[in-house]
Amino acid sequence: MVRALAFDVFGTVVDWRSSIIGELEVFGKSQGLQRDWPAFADSWRAGYAPAMDRVRRGELPWTRIDDLHRAILVALLDAAGIRAGDAEIDHLNRAWHRLDPWPDSVVGLTRLKQRYLITTLSNGNVSLLTNMAKHAGLPWDCVISAELFRHYKPDPEAYQGCAELLDIAPEELTLVAAHPSDLRAARAAGLGTAYVARPLEYGPDRAPHDVASDAFDITATDFVDLADQLGA
Amino acid sequence: MVRALAFDVFGTVVDWRSSIIGELEVFGKSQGLQRDWPAFADSWRAGYAPAMDRVRRGELPWTRIDDLHRAILVALLDAAGIRAGDAEIDHLNRAWHRLDPWPDSVVGLTRLKQRYLITTLSNGNVSLLTNMAKHAGLPWDCVISAELFRHYKPDPEAYQGCAELLDIAPEELTLVAAHPSDLRAARAAGLGTAYVARPLEYGPDRAPHDVASDAFDITATDFVDLADQLGA
Repeated sequence: MVRALAFDVFGTVVDWRSSIIGELEVFGKSQGLQRDWPAFADSWRAGYAPAMDRVRRGELPWTRIDDLHRAILVALLDAAGIRAGDAEIDHLNRAWHRLDPWPDSVVGLTRLKQRYLITTLSNGNVSLLTNMAKHAGLPWDCVISAELFRHYKPDPEAYQGCAELLDIAPEELTLVAAHPSDLRAARAAGLGTAYVARPLEYGPDRAPHDVASDAFDITATDFVDLADQLGA
Repeated sequence: MVRALAFDVFGTVVDWRSSIIGELEVFGKSQGLQRDWPAFADSWRAGYAPAMDRVRRGELPWTRIDDLHRAILVALLDAAGIRAGDAEIDHLNRAWHRLDPWPDSVVGLTRLKQRYLITTLSNGNVSLLTNMAKHAGLPWDCVISAELFRHYKPDPEAYQGCAELLDIAPEELTLVAAHPSDLRAARAAGLGTAYVARPLEYGPDRAPHDVASDAFDITATDFVDLADQLGA
């Protein structure tokens, strides 16, 4: 029996790519710069998994996503020959706190919250997720982050730790995510799995994930469909 | 500048005593028992600080409030000669997840949330606080508990840990509480302090705290008054 739903956030709940491109365009205008901002956004995001993997392997001590994002941003600005002050970099880095939701996210979460406990389970730090929820109107029951366990997903400690904090069995918790690798790790940790397709996460030119309809416990086209399937 | 408000919960946000008495009365009726349930509720609550202190002194390993509450309850039932099954005890123990708010709590929090980040900072465990928020309609931006730091208030790690998770300076965080001892510990950890009077917390026959109007940064009669004073 599903009692709680834990949501991956970047890409699953919020459209990080469009939001970051928009923030980069504003930054570019303020600096009088023209660049390929979609490519810049993609590079920023592409730096994230390798940086987390260094933390997961113990090559870096525990480091928040905010700080990983900032280090990647500074390197990208440097490589692009863009000079900016610390306050400008800080503001731009906090664009990840201001990501906009997919159009169905708030309405779907609001319905799901009526029947289930809904929480984040994201590699984003607590302050990022909390600020994002205020910005985007995401009605979480609580905010759970890899930061609380000092283990980034897909480490099993993140999934198991989420169930423990909620004081429920892993099988009573379902991870909702747009990424098969996250869902496979959740399943290995004993959680239920709900795949939600977000074919535009990486932009219109990238092929969506190829996911068989029976690969996970639930496969949904968006959060409204998920609410329908879960009777919420 | 105040950016976030962290709320003590038991007694400050919710009226634990009336709620627990009500649950004990229901339990008593189901068992065909008559007892002095207000006195039973007071004894249950009175066991809580000494139990936490044993954890704080290291005499007990980290133990959740749910488990401390249950051990106290079992001892009280035993002393009162009341026999109950595990499922009944579990249900009764989770009365602490179903506490009702003071009449001004939801309206005050809803106003304060418009202008500030609002979080719990309670010795209650995450699942207790999350279930209570669903039960009582408490609109927290996030749920922060002593459980996340494995340090009960008034240990400084709880107050400092809350500010760190929110990624703000301690002086940007104000603790809101009905208990002077909690507020003094928060101040010692660098936080701002807001005292809210809850004269009925321990019932109509107990004298309220004697708090000078200038003892803390803010003194309020309830959460609506607090919202007025904080411009929310």
